[in-house]
Amino acid sequence: MGEFQLIEQLQRQTRIPAPGVILGIGDDAAVLEIPAGHHLVAATDTLNAGVHFPVDTSPFDIGYKCLAVNLSDLAAMGATPQWVLLSLSLPQADTDWMESFTAGFMSLAHVYGVALVGGDTTSGPLSVGLTALGSVEPGRQLVRSGAQAGDLIIVSGTVGGAARVLDLGSETAPEKDRVLLNRPQPRVRLGQALSGHASACIDISDGLLADLAHLLKASGCAARLATDKLPIPGILAGLDDERRWGYQLAGGDDYELLFCLPKSSKALLEIWSKELDIGLSVIGTVEDGEGISCIAPDGSEFLPGRTCWDHFGGET
Amino acid sequence: MGEFQLIEQLQRQTRIPAPGVILGIGDDAAVLEIPAGHHLVAATDTLNAGVHFPVDTSPFDIGYKCLAVNLSDLAAMGATPQWVLLSLSLPQADTDWMESFTAGFMSLAHVYGVALVGGDTTSGPLSVGLTALGSVEPGRQLVRSGAQAGDLIIVSGTVGGAARVLDLGSETAPEKDRVLLNRPQPRVRLGQALSGHASACIDISDGLLADLAHLLKASGCAARLATDKLPIPGILAGLDDERRWGYQLAGGDDYELLFCLPKSSKALLEIWSKELDIGLSVIGTVEDGEGISCIAPDGSEFLPGRTCWDHFGGET
Repeated sequence: MGEFQLIEQLQRQTRIPAPGVILGIGDDAAVLEIPAGHHLVAATDTLNAGVHFPVDTSPFDIGYKCLAVNLSDLAAMGATPQWVLLSLSLPQADTDWMESFTAGFMSLAHVYGVALVGGDTTSGPLSVGLTALGSVEPGRQLVRSGAQAGDLIIVSGTVGGAARVLDLGSETAPEKDRVLLNRPQPRVRLGQALSGHASACIDISDGLLADLAHLLKASGCAARLATDKLPIPGILAGLDDERRWGYQLAGGDDYELLFCLPKSSKALLEIWSKELDIGLSVIGTVEDGEGISCIAPDGSEFLPGRTCWDHFGGET
Repeated sequence: MGEFQLIEQLQRQTRIPAPGVILGIGDDAAVLEIPAGHHLVAATDTLNAGVHFPVDTSPFDIGYKCLAVNLSDLAAMGATPQWVLLSLSLPQADTDWMESFTAGFMSLAHVYGVALVGGDTTSGPLSVGLTALGSVEPGRQLVRSGAQAGDLIIVSGTVGGAARVLDLGSETAPEKDRVLLNRPQPRVRLGQALSGHASACIDISDGLLADLAHLLKASGCAARLATDKLPIPGILAGLDDERRWGYQLAGGDDYELLFCLPKSSKALLEIWSKELDIGLSVIGTVEDGEGISCIAPDGSEFLPGRTCWDHFGGET
């Protein structure tokens, strides 16, 4: 099978009715209609085999995850996802692999009515690049830069589970927990609910502390976290405190939303949690100054050994 | 240097005043404003080292070319390029490499006022993924599917030069000709001029015959080409006819526009050619039926040995 057949296969399998597609896959570029009075929101993220997912990850999970991490970026902006462009490098053209990859991709695309509108397949080491396009009403986007001293810091779902699954490996990690790494749920509805309320928002890809640091830098603030308030996934339940906190604070790949909310809006948390069936944990507060303090239940400060997932291993 | 410093370096070097950027690099996604009453045009293309460019290509040329090939896709749609998102995989973080890459990228970005609005750098085999975003007035996009029997087939610039440079290698190819491979000129202004006139358009990335076949398939037509009308780059001047035609018909990477025009509009070619200072050669006509005939000056049919550049080596 050659490149053009691969693209045609993708095209056949990914037809889903989507609004705003004037011209989809099959020309030099897609032509798209942004809803009237809305802004375009665009994010791009590439996943490389052996770096962003273990080499033994199933093609279904790779297809699911590449879309999930990009929708997570749109979720962190409070945007409505609409279309995606896919750039796929494969060592060899393989119909079975493509079918399984596409099935994983579409299983999530259908949930949000996201249409694949452009594709590019090339030979090369396994790598999946995706660009997600969505829309937001002017001024309604969530940003990293609006946190203020006194705001609550909240995280959705649980944190640290994906990193634990990665450490254990697919052979050892309990099957029910592997979804934490392989099938993260982009928090699209939550992001939309937060729009107009949250003072700042980011999604957790590099790890809670690393991503919180980005948010605080953009906002010019500091933070104080309580380690015993960090939400615990089942797979971390048996670990001693320090190992668990390490995973929760420094583990990446959770794709939960981390956001700040004025204390006066705290009552909204219960409403969102109920409506969206999602855990929302207040884990700390924004403070004046710089840096992040993680306070253990005994009042001492906890410093995790590994602070952040950096793809080039630099100090950050 | 780590990933975050790399992104910051990119951010510092790529600030260029661009309209419509509500939120650029530095958040989870970019927020962009499409000009009122326009549609969004989006294309994505990835270049892998050793596949899409020789491994000894300079970082400056890689930076230039990754933008050029994406702008070429927008040109083939008659769109106005506005923003790009970059996904860069590098074996190691390297400040000098990044500076040179960025200089090459910006040398072309400045020409068209294109702003880099999102970035993602990861460790991995050298690979550059780009998504180009632009705009077009509704109904003014050029497509592949509108060619009709009787239309003229026209190609801009010259063809086959890039493939010849690639075959000779950077040591052997004359220095002045290497730009044919390393610094293709996206035909943005030409695409805009063609909008509303050309019946079909595509850019030549895989080779003239391969890309013409895409256009004809989308239009449901056949074509008849005259080999002696194919525009000749200097680097092919000394070759015998059959070798030269082989490069011109099957060589990829030229990024010229190949378009169809009703005969009644032929007079426009001279005007565009003068205004845009670009060669425009009528190389054949669209016919009813299927397939492409290449006719040599003696009236015989010429069949090039290699019909198309397919990244997976499949028959197409």
